[in-house]
Amino acid sequence: MSKLRGLQSIEFTKCPAIIGHEAVVGKKEGEGPLKAYFDHVVQDELFGEKSFEYAERKFYKTAVELACKNAGLHTADIRYLLGGDLLNQIISAGYAARDLQIPFLGLYGACSTMAQSLLLGSVLIDGGYADTAACAVSSHFASAERQYRFPLELGNQRTPTAQWTITGAGCTILSDEKEANLCITGATVGRVTDYGITDANNMGAAMAPAAANTILCHLQDFGRTVQDYDLIVTGDLGSVGLQLLKEILTQAGINTDSRFQDCGCMIFDPETQDVHAGGSGCGCSAVVLNGYLLKKLKEGAYKRILFCATGAKLSTTSSQQGESIPGIAHAVVIERVK
Amino acid sequence: MSKLRGLQSIEFTKCPAIIGHEAVVGKKEGEGPLKAYFDHVVQDELFGEKSFEYAERKFYKTAVELACKNAGLHTADIRYLLGGDLLNQIISAGYAARDLQIPFLGLYGACSTMAQSLLLGSVLIDGGYADTAACAVSSHFASAERQYRFPLELGNQRTPTAQWTITGAGCTILSDEKEANLCITGATVGRVTDYGITDANNMGAAMAPAAANTILCHLQDFGRTVQDYDLIVTGDLGSVGLQLLKEILTQAGINTDSRFQDCGCMIFDPETQDVHAGGSGCGCSAVVLNGYLLKKLKEGAYKRILFCATGAKLSTTSSQQGESIPGIAHAVVIERVK
Repeated sequence: MSKLRGLQSIEFTKCPAIIGHEAVVGKKEGEGPLKAYFDHVVQDELFGEKSFEYAERKFYKTAVELACKNAGLHTADIRYLLGGDLLNQIISAGYAARDLQIPFLGLYGACSTMAQSLLLGSVLIDGGYADTAACAVSSHFASAERQYRFPLELGNQRTPTAQWTITGAGCTILSDEKEANLCITGATVGRVTDYGITDANNMGAAMAPAAANTILCHLQDFGRTVQDYDLIVTGDLGSVGLQLLKEILTQAGINTDSRFQDCGCMIFDPETQDVHAGGSGCGCSAVVLNGYLLKKLKEGAYKRILFCATGAKLSTTSSQQGESIPGIAHAVVIERVK
Repeated sequence: MSKLRGLQSIEFTKCPAIIGHEAVVGKKEGEGPLKAYFDHVVQDELFGEKSFEYAERKFYKTAVELACKNAGLHTADIRYLLGGDLLNQIISAGYAARDLQIPFLGLYGACSTMAQSLLLGSVLIDGGYADTAACAVSSHFASAERQYRFPLELGNQRTPTAQWTITGAGCTILSDEKEANLCITGATVGRVTDYGITDANNMGAAMAPAAANTILCHLQDFGRTVQDYDLIVTGDLGSVGLQLLKEILTQAGINTDSRFQDCGCMIFDPETQDVHAGGSGCGCSAVVLNGYLLKKLKEGAYKRILFCATGAKLSTTSSQQGESIPGIAHAVVIERVK
């Protein structure tokens, strides 16, 4: 049976199993609407380290270790680690991979990396190229702000469309085990999409067209409608991007009802947490998925969800040269099978 | 039949085929020992663009377009594009993917990215998750120097261990076609290895332990010896790193004869081209593979080679924070099957 679906999608016939998952979040994330679901909240933004970058890699490493433990495995049992982060040269993932000593496949999909790692991890498991794979992603508010925007010490005002980069990391353990109750059944690889956004404080608008493109392509490739999903959740569009996504999809004839949600809108309370348009960063979809959504799937709140993480390919170098910020979105289908 | 080999390796039972490949190089690379093999030499280091970064992405895009043409395909026929480059947020690959509109999986493995893209591309083809895949990687001397080291205008002296980042891009087209004469039969995923090197002008030493680790693991996983290969070619260790690799392997009981070669040592003439320890950059192994080695395989000079691209996970951020430079190496087995 062909595993190719339509133009950009894959069907996993052996259903790679999710056997463990964990999220580690910062203090602010642990005070938001999902606080009851986050078991590991780190109060110190430096996580006991000497810099935000060292802290971020500790979030990454800790998430992998805890997810392995959650799966009843040691890190040495994991065949391959797939993932990345937002820092130049994906140093959080790279140094964590050095410390963990798991064979490492580094990915860069900006904030779409959680979905990209699940997609490629599922290919490895489904095809019989790995028996276990850890898919992990991190971000840190302070390391991201100083790399992409301004030093925090400058105290710059944030614009209304700005999003707040999540401090945290999430890890999913995939396996060829047959007895798990959650598995990944399909995926869609995204195209780089560019509507000409140049504002580094409006990532939602940069990513929304990519999310729309991937969701529409996914539905077409699988011959499904939005009613086939209990939840279609985007990575970190935030309130501005989610609104734009709904507008684009409505124009395409899609009924954008309450099943369309966004990790960036779920993680913070807009009334009390002063995050403007919501959460962002590749840790955002990673911690919402691994800390909250997978638990809701297990509890029976959802049967099948489309997890569509969205990335803005923001680069200070290309922004300084006048380029726009293209977006990309990858999607995976996660189902409760028993 | 299991596709897992040993601890870190994969056997491809359906032999993903190499149906097209092309390298596009800069002027200096086109004047080196491999000049007779490089069909596409760009004399202008800006490639008609306004900046080195715009030039690099044009190298990337051109390599993909020419490789597709070489394979008798259009870019629209390619199911997935896999690859990356050395620039922050892999902007060369990302913007090229936007222009090419091929669904894109962004990778970051520093200078190991060519092997990583072939490895994951082969998994997609071998497992039936794609019928075609383009694996492409680029680097540019001027964009890399100013990002990682010093502005060229400063005229800094280069140390004896320094390597010269290649200007160029290479692309390999993989397919599930059964009639091709070159195919990929196996691969080994590397671990991040760190011997504590902190000198950004000694990448060879940073990468050699990773190359040794991957080669030793590969031989053990497949139960092979070096005599099973006509060539074991590392990515871009240069003369300093290749010497170190041979020392580490000799200590491990391996006979490091003339079949051990390095793309960084092959691309420039050390006597006349003033590159110190040799070539580097992820374009280095990409252009040597796609411009030279695959042609030699087709000509019959080799029957089976181990292509082991090596990456130094150099980051200015982590270097400024006192961190060492870890290395990683991934390997793929390329064979002439008829």
